Amino acid sequence: MSNKKITNRDEDFAKWYTDVVNAAHLSSYSNVKGCIILEPNGYAIWEKMQQTLDKMFKASGHRNVAMPMLIPENLINKEGELIKGFAPEVAWVTMGGSKQLEERMCIRPTSETLFSDYYSTLVKSYRDLPIKLNQWCSVMRWEKETRPFLRSREFWWQEGHTVHETQAEAEKETRDMLATYKKFFEEYLAIPVICGRKTEKEKFAGAEYSLTVEALMYNGVALQSGTSHYFGQKFSKAYDIKFLNRNNELEYAYQSSWGVSSRMIGALIMVHGDDDGLVIPPRIAPLQVRIVPIGEDEEIVKVASSCKAALDKAGITSDIDLSEKSPGFKFAEAEVLGIPFRIEIGKRDLDNGVITLARRDTKEKYQISLKSNIASEVTKLMEAIQANLYNKAKARRDKMTYVATNLDEFAKIMNKTPGFVHADWCGDPECESKVKEIRGTKSRCILENEKLITGKCVVCGKKAKHHVLWGIQY
Amino acid sequence: MSNKKITNRDEDFAKWYTDVVNAAHLSSYSNVKGCIILEPNGYAIWEKMQQTLDKMFKASGHRNVAMPMLIPENLINKEGELIKGFAPEVAWVTMGGSKQLEERMCIRPTSETLFSDYYSTLVKSYRDLPIKLNQWCSVMRWEKETRPFLRSREFWWQEGHTVHETQAEAEKETRDMLATYKKFFEEYLAIPVICGRKTEKEKFAGAEYSLTVEALMYNGVALQSGTSHYFGQKFSKAYDIKFLNRNNELEYAYQSSWGVSSRMIGALIMVHGDDDGLVIPPRIAPLQVRIVPIGEDEEIVKVASSCKAALDKAGITSDIDLSEKSPGFKFAEAEVLGIPFRIEIGKRDLDNGVITLARRDTKEKYQISLKSNIASEVTKLMEAIQANLYNKAKARRDKMTYVATNLDEFAKIMNKTPGFVHADWCGDPECESKVKEIRGTKSRCILENEKLITGKCVVCGKKAKHHVLWGIQY
Repeated sequence: MSNKKITNRDEDFAKWYTDVVNAAHLSSYSNVKGCIILEPNGYAIWEKMQQTLDKMFKASGHRNVAMPMLIPENLINKEGELIKGFAPEVAWVTMGGSKQLEERMCIRPTSETLFSDYYSTLVKSYRDLPIKLNQWCSVMRWEKETRPFLRSREFWWQEGHTVHETQAEAEKETRDMLATYKKFFEEYLAIPVICGRKTEKEKFAGAEYSLTVEALMYNGVALQSGTSHYFGQKFSKAYDIKFLNRNNELEYAYQSSWGVSSRMIGALIMVHGDDDGLVIPPRIAPLQVRIVPIGEDEEIVKVASSCKAALDKAGITSDIDLSEKSPGFKFAEAEVLGIPFRIEIGKRDLDNGVITLARRDTKEKYQISLKSNIASEVTKLMEAIQANLYNKAKARRDKMTYVATNLDEFAKIMNKTPGFVHADWCGDPECESKVKEIRGTKSRCILENEKLITGKCVVCGKKAKHHVLWGIQY
Repeated sequence: MSNKKITNRDEDFAKWYTDVVNAAHLSSYSNVKGCIILEPNGYAIWEKMQQTLDKMFKASGHRNVAMPMLIPENLINKEGELIKGFAPEVAWVTMGGSKQLEERMCIRPTSETLFSDYYSTLVKSYRDLPIKLNQWCSVMRWEKETRPFLRSREFWWQEGHTVHETQAEAEKETRDMLATYKKFFEEYLAIPVICGRKTEKEKFAGAEYSLTVEALMYNGVALQSGTSHYFGQKFSKAYDIKFLNRNNELEYAYQSSWGVSSRMIGALIMVHGDDDGLVIPPRIAPLQVRIVPIGEDEEIVKVASSCKAALDKAGITSDIDLSEKSPGFKFAEAEVLGIPFRIEIGKRDLDNGVITLARRDTKEKYQISLKSNIASEVTKLMEAIQANLYNKAKARRDKMTYVATNLDEFAKIMNKTPGFVHADWCGDPECESKVKEIRGTKSRCILENEKLITGKCVVCGKKAKHHVLWGIQY
């Protein structure tokens, strides 16, 4: 474990990010251009995210499958908008062994086409519906610029794909899964998110509409953190998913898809991390407590073991750092890794009948009696950490959220400290493009339930249609 | 859920296998040639296998990672034997978007090269060792003939890759992981296996030696079910994994790798399945109990719910079949799916204060009092099912295990009912090839701890070196 200096977060945020990724050994670049390695510490976070979400998906009646990783060209070409959107960024397999393939295949950039093709063989009657499937896998998009977790050619994700009897049911699924994502971000990752609908320009290729959860990073840059798409009958028509409905008529089915990815690890870093490294909210931390014995005294190691036993019993994950490093080094290391909690056990403390609990988030230390219920003390403090991280992130986001009523105001905000900007929009893509001239600011989402601010488009001043959230994006 | 007739297992085993895969909805062919879809029922078994093995791997100090799915040609070419072994069966990516790549990349057929490349950046001193990593992923091998779970272009597996300070430690790891596989097969899958070493001809390309666990299917055909390889310094020399040893000298590290795959689902089907469909051992069954209410009487549904609650509490997975099908259809469906246990709740039974438990393996039915502890009754019977399946499989395998002292005997056995054949071998690959002329029989493994039978090679009659297990393979 390295203990290199981490760049100051306010000085150079991009360098700070890279430093944290490296110091916490979350991921490393590989010799495969544009592809990263999810190292054990990074993968452990991803595993915990998977387990948590997977339970939520299963609780709402979804089942997992595995689809092929390759898509033959004629199959992906069937839905015109999707392939137009993805063609510039797919990797093509053209040879198997030493033989040229008769038809080239791409590595899945997303799997609507495969699921739709599969559904066309399954769906005959309304009695077969709904079918709600999900898969955990990696996908490949031939990106040019890459940054660990935020953008890389290969990334890890889940993609849910469902097929329904009615438009209403498919739309409900689309919204329900967005709500699941919101819950996961806020309750587990301690990241506040804003939900809304993507504009036509920003929606998923092939969708009727796309919903999104948007988060704001420490530096005021927005991150599209998860999306849920309503397809209507677009794919069912392209892939011939027809069923006999309750009126005994053939009808095309209604579909949705939704996904979140390893990019969430990037959000975790950029929302909660600080100058000492990663900070992981307790509910998503693969390791919640590190116990650091100070010295090798037999008594100290014994108390460490009994602490661990008590935490195990309460379902709190912990380990004991018995390495030969100095206590100071061990403390720093636990901090770099973002472990929510540290228990320090020293000789003098023991003589006084106490041990020390140290929070990662606030660096506060608490001495508690050896006679107290350690697991319940830790549980209480972990809940406090979880709440504090969320509240801090929300306060910061709110502070970095602005309102603009004209383009000058808009530019002033974004040129000073960027953040989320609320502004009305007429719906014209031209106006959307005009906003992009301000440091690449894009619409994050249409806030469907928010009233208009001024009623006039922030760009052209004409009658506004939508209250929109804007931001610079990763 | 279809309820099509399943072909008689003794009449046409290959057709029976396909029928079971289809009837239980485990996997289906996709429109991607040679690639299968793991359908929800098949994937649920795979998930349960993953969870069980993953716990075992973690308990022995292994951590999970994710490596890129692509390998640049120059990287995979560094170790000569590996690429020679895999070159005819890799898929090549030659284009990214509309651009020809400067260097083509293959989809990983296995990831020794990627792990070794990564290890070369991590390993500096003996203090960094051992490193014991694993990944769950799919790999791609451009096979011509395919059969669900047994052979397909893409398959799902885990690959463990470790790097060590000494030969002894790396060899111990190689054997320990083989023992882990044996334990998993016997205690969870209820499949008896034989462990041994592959011959030079059959070992993994690039390994010093390969160990294997071999199982025998119902029809007497052998299945290589998991392998563990010792690499010595072959990959560390090719990929420059050097470390300062305890004598402060630079030394090449010692490596192992080991894997099991979705092929295990094929073994499960072919060892335990019967003419009514799949039979899943309780310890690996995603769903252990199906509760079938007979009729819609309120009282019946209430009892079903309280049964489920009791099972939930005991950690036994169950569901209640509330569909509108007839009881007979529901029973047949639970059998096709291989659910270890069925609880039938009918009006007449309730009037007598009993419910009926039905075992999938023996079809035996038990009436138990509603006042008894249902969870503990089910637990007891599930243990009996688990033991019975193992014992039945072992008895069958033992009955199909033969000894041959000359080639005539050998041919007679294999031409009648194939199975495992024990026979001595001189070590000459020519003699190994001669055996292959008998219905394609191959060496399964060298039984290192077994004494020679006759001391003479079963083919040439010269002095034998090894006691070898032979069989026809999938």
